[in-house]
Amino acid sequence: MAILDIQARDNSSFARAGRLRTAHGDVRTPAFVPLATKATVKGLLPNEVAALGYDMVLGNTFHLLLNPGPELIKSFGGLHRFMGWEAPIITDSGGFQVFSMGHGTIAEEIKGRARHGKGKDREGAILAIREEGVRFRSYVDGRVRLLAPEDSMAIQAALGSDIALVFDECTPFHVDRDYTARSTERTHRWLDRCLTWHSEYGPEGQLVYGIVQGGVYEDLRRASAQFIADSGCEGVAIGGSLGAEKAQMYEVVGFAVEELRGAHEQRPRHLLGIGEVDDLIRGVELGIDTFDCAMPTRLGRHGTALVPDPGTRWRVDLTKGRWREVSDPLLDGCPCPACTQGFSRGYLSYLVRSGELTGMRLLTLHNLTFMAGLMADLREAVIDGRLPEVASALRAGATPSWR
Amino acid sequence: MAILDIQARDNSSFARAGRLRTAHGDVRTPAFVPLATKATVKGLLPNEVAALGYDMVLGNTFHLLLNPGPELIKSFGGLHRFMGWEAPIITDSGGFQVFSMGHGTIAEEIKGRARHGKGKDREGAILAIREEGVRFRSYVDGRVRLLAPEDSMAIQAALGSDIALVFDECTPFHVDRDYTARSTERTHRWLDRCLTWHSEYGPEGQLVYGIVQGGVYEDLRRASAQFIADSGCEGVAIGGSLGAEKAQMYEVVGFAVEELRGAHEQRPRHLLGIGEVDDLIRGVELGIDTFDCAMPTRLGRHGTALVPDPGTRWRVDLTKGRWREVSDPLLDGCPCPACTQGFSRGYLSYLVRSGELTGMRLLTLHNLTFMAGLMADLREAVIDGRLPEVASALRAGATPSWR
Repeated sequence: MAILDIQARDNSSFARAGRLRTAHGDVRTPAFVPLATKATVKGLLPNEVAALGYDMVLGNTFHLLLNPGPELIKSFGGLHRFMGWEAPIITDSGGFQVFSMGHGTIAEEIKGRARHGKGKDREGAILAIREEGVRFRSYVDGRVRLLAPEDSMAIQAALGSDIALVFDECTPFHVDRDYTARSTERTHRWLDRCLTWHSEYGPEGQLVYGIVQGGVYEDLRRASAQFIADSGCEGVAIGGSLGAEKAQMYEVVGFAVEELRGAHEQRPRHLLGIGEVDDLIRGVELGIDTFDCAMPTRLGRHGTALVPDPGTRWRVDLTKGRWREVSDPLLDGCPCPACTQGFSRGYLSYLVRSGELTGMRLLTLHNLTFMAGLMADLREAVIDGRLPEVASALRAGATPSWR
Repeated sequence: MAILDIQARDNSSFARAGRLRTAHGDVRTPAFVPLATKATVKGLLPNEVAALGYDMVLGNTFHLLLNPGPELIKSFGGLHRFMGWEAPIITDSGGFQVFSMGHGTIAEEIKGRARHGKGKDREGAILAIREEGVRFRSYVDGRVRLLAPEDSMAIQAALGSDIALVFDECTPFHVDRDYTARSTERTHRWLDRCLTWHSEYGPEGQLVYGIVQGGVYEDLRRASAQFIADSGCEGVAIGGSLGAEKAQMYEVVGFAVEELRGAHEQRPRHLLGIGEVDDLIRGVELGIDTFDCAMPTRLGRHGTALVPDPGTRWRVDLTKGRWREVSDPLLDGCPCPACTQGFSRGYLSYLVRSGELTGMRLLTLHNLTFMAGLMADLREAVIDGRLPEVASALRAGATPSWR
């Protein structure tokens, strides 16, 4: 059985809709994957996340390694049992986090918002990047630890995730082509080590996704995508620096996906760390199946709500005093508790300015409801052959339909 | 119609069960009242609080005065509409908070845990206590503000609470009898001013509770209770220092309640700031109808869960490493999400040690579920004529029945 069961394709783009089959059930694609970084979607219970329409969450290998540790989670029967989420889980490899400590603001860089000349030097908590792996200092207890490709896979095996990502170096924007090329080659050698370890020790039913690197360089990206696709990984994730602006990001993702067509068509494709509304729409058109991003949950905790308005990058910042006296709800038609239980923008603004947990919770619920509605509309549009109109309307600020 | 409709009495104690009639509906008594200090029960939505079995919450006049201000809340149609809670609300007068700033650890003192010799001097943020009211410095913006009895009533009128408490001086434990007597007399004069203001400007249907002071002195307590009962207040709250230990607290509450029997029987009685499990059981036996306390919600946010164990003061501190590997739930039979959705003590301990919002939320839900079950058992026991057995079993560590 194919891992990705493609049910429909859009004629005008490379979008497809389907079902990703995992050991803990199916994920309807295209899908946004909320972060359960430290074994919880912050502030929400698992049944609440499922009720919003999410089939899969993303756990974080790096953070869970440091606390509470994979052995403990394994002793509880794995991450699903530990956190009470019996549906699919994807775990990242820890590569992104461990390199972020040294590279600085990687999260900004991969999203086309690189700040030239402001990249940190390669120091921070990474002590050494070697062929064997990465030596770093734990932010929890200060201990020096080694994270090698095999370690990452062993941790993810202990966590028992449905999808494991291979250990890679997330190349940042500010390094040169030569560094990117050498780093990408090392990432490919690490991929082979990950697959070797997994073929011997990996848990039954755990899928492995390779990670395409190659920075913003077309030839490196294409070669990396080919290498990953040929490696025998079940799925392909696209990572690393995607450019200085959105146009370049879309181009770079396009290079990678182009190499995954044809023979590799049924390999699921994940775009790492991307979650802006317009990026999701374009990502779906480019043929991406799943996305993860801290944006909706992190923004929610910091007082920003998602609304259908491209002019504000789909954001309302409720920490601003201008919302103080506004009695309107966040978004008419939104089925989330913040919008259906009579809470005004004024009250929500008061809650977030006061640091109240209820505000963080309501905005997290709203933002994840918005993202779920957006993705459901895109998925249904692909199935119904209406993606061009739907994508165009959503880009222009249409409210998700939540049918 | 009586404000308190007494439906049953216990033969062996002064306990009674009934319904407290308010403009926004009935409160089944005896009842615990969760704190919605800043217009939200921290981390929970109003419909969740109601689903736990709570009929009323307590809003905080002092905090809401400083932020967002009574005018703003009034412009939203009052506190009920602002916070989305259409059931009864009691608001305190602000007296406790404004005096806490000067007196130091009042919360500890009123609960029979006075630390002799450790009371702060009368300074801090209170600038002056005069006959007209209290001058203090706002913790929000540093401005000097006056809170007079009429101000407190006007704020509570703007909030539109169902029950307003009169403005009092919450006398601390470390002052002498002479100070307590003079302070109690001033509190009585302030009561008259509150009632005068309320009779002219108070909102239709808002009940007013006077506050019994008098420290630990039997004659002062009895005289204060008589004064409050004779004043024309609809209800009576018992406040201030209740002693150095639990035995004294029960004695002092007993003095006050004794004066409220007979002609004043149908005045509802509220015990301010008391919420330990054994104190609630004894309070019910003494004839208290409603209680409020930060304990269950505050403990929950700080990682402590309530369990039926008098040996640990009904507490499990999940921040302790000893729970790390424990797969048991918090409490068998408890209907809360933390106990019914498969979360282990180990996972909950991990969440609270990691500062995760989900941990605060789960323990808040659990603790309020525990308190609701405890109070429901006590209420049903009074109605069924079984209070002695039920109180005795709960004191010995019985699990609430959640029938």
